[in-house]
Amino acid sequence: MPRQVDHQERREAIARALWRVVEQRGVLDLSMREVAQEAGISLGQLQHYFASRREMLSFAMDSASAQTAARVGRGLDALGDRPHPRDVLRLMLTETLPLHADARTTSRMSAAYVVEALHDEGIHARARDGLLQGRASMEQLIRDAIADGYLGADRDPVIETSLLLALTGFTTLIELDAVEPREVLTAVDRYLDRLFS
Amino acid sequence: MPRQVDHQERREAIARALWRVVEQRGVLDLSMREVAQEAGISLGQLQHYFASRREMLSFAMDSASAQTAARVGRGLDALGDRPHPRDVLRLMLTETLPLHADARTTSRMSAAYVVEALHDEGIHARARDGLLQGRASMEQLIRDAIADGYLGADRDPVIETSLLLALTGFTTLIELDAVEPREVLTAVDRYLDRLFS
Repeated sequence: MPRQVDHQERREAIARALWRVVEQRGVLDLSMREVAQEAGISLGQLQHYFASRREMLSFAMDSASAQTAARVGRGLDALGDRPHPRDVLRLMLTETLPLHADARTTSRMSAAYVVEALHDEGIHARARDGLLQGRASMEQLIRDAIADGYLGADRDPVIETSLLLALTGFTTLIELDAVEPREVLTAVDRYLDRLFS
Repeated sequence: MPRQVDHQERREAIARALWRVVEQRGVLDLSMREVAQEAGISLGQLQHYFASRREMLSFAMDSASAQTAARVGRGLDALGDRPHPRDVLRLMLTETLPLHADARTTSRMSAAYVVEALHDEGIHARARDGLLQGRASMEQLIRDAIADGYLGADRDPVIETSLLLALTGFTTLIELDAVEPREVLTAVDRYLDRLFS
């Protein structure tokens, strides 16, 4: 048992080292050697925990997704027992944007994973699955909001989900300092006001 | 004169080789050596045209932006003398999305440039300037649309511009095959209908 726990803990520590490399030096330097160095272990030790660069990246991505989900979960708890779907959608969208340090780390990890997906079929399939899962849960939320009368029955759940997911394009605007975080939140609120009007 | 033309032509040919590397193998392999090989010249010859990786990338990005602008320009010509601002915004947005082969090449070049920008101040500044220029011209179009009565006077040009630019987040959904191109166009049309209603 303790051995198993150690193994998982060590993998999490390596994932955090990987994020630091992504955060500081980008995906270009994301070799296993680079991550081992950042984690303070040898390449051989790293290979004991991850057989390949792809396996390491996928674990780090899963771990980043879990962190984002945990942030959304904490936000949901703060919204109380029966949160308004508008507030839930706002939380789901804004926690994927690099608007604060933790979200920036997971956002950059996610961007690095998408870049890898363009040239690695295995990563493409995993990234696609993750995105489709997120899409399905957002679509269900919108369907429920329509059924509960929060959203007009004329709203198409598929289209509204696509548009909300597309707004993650704020990521590039934020990373290039082309918008202030405050402006992003104002724009997201304006968008949600219009959707729920 | 011919010497100058040759120089520019050769630089364009190298930019196209660079796009092919980005298209086929991603930004990870985007070394000057890799691009020289793809362009069928020696590294020394490449360095005669571009002193650094950054200079080469920036030229290729400018060239990609010029191609996107040319596609938008041809689309505008097809819209006739006084195009509806809705059609102009639709064109500006959809031509930046990887919905067809040419747009995919320039979209991937642009994504590669943003990834580089996160870890290179010079590229960050250039990418930011390019984005702010695009933002300014879209904002002016929206201001004109309000002045001409196409758009309600209650629309905030800054917020509407941010939201339209954020919709370039469709890029990730398209690249991960999480939406059909047809769905993207339907969603963009629904968005613009709501904006102009």
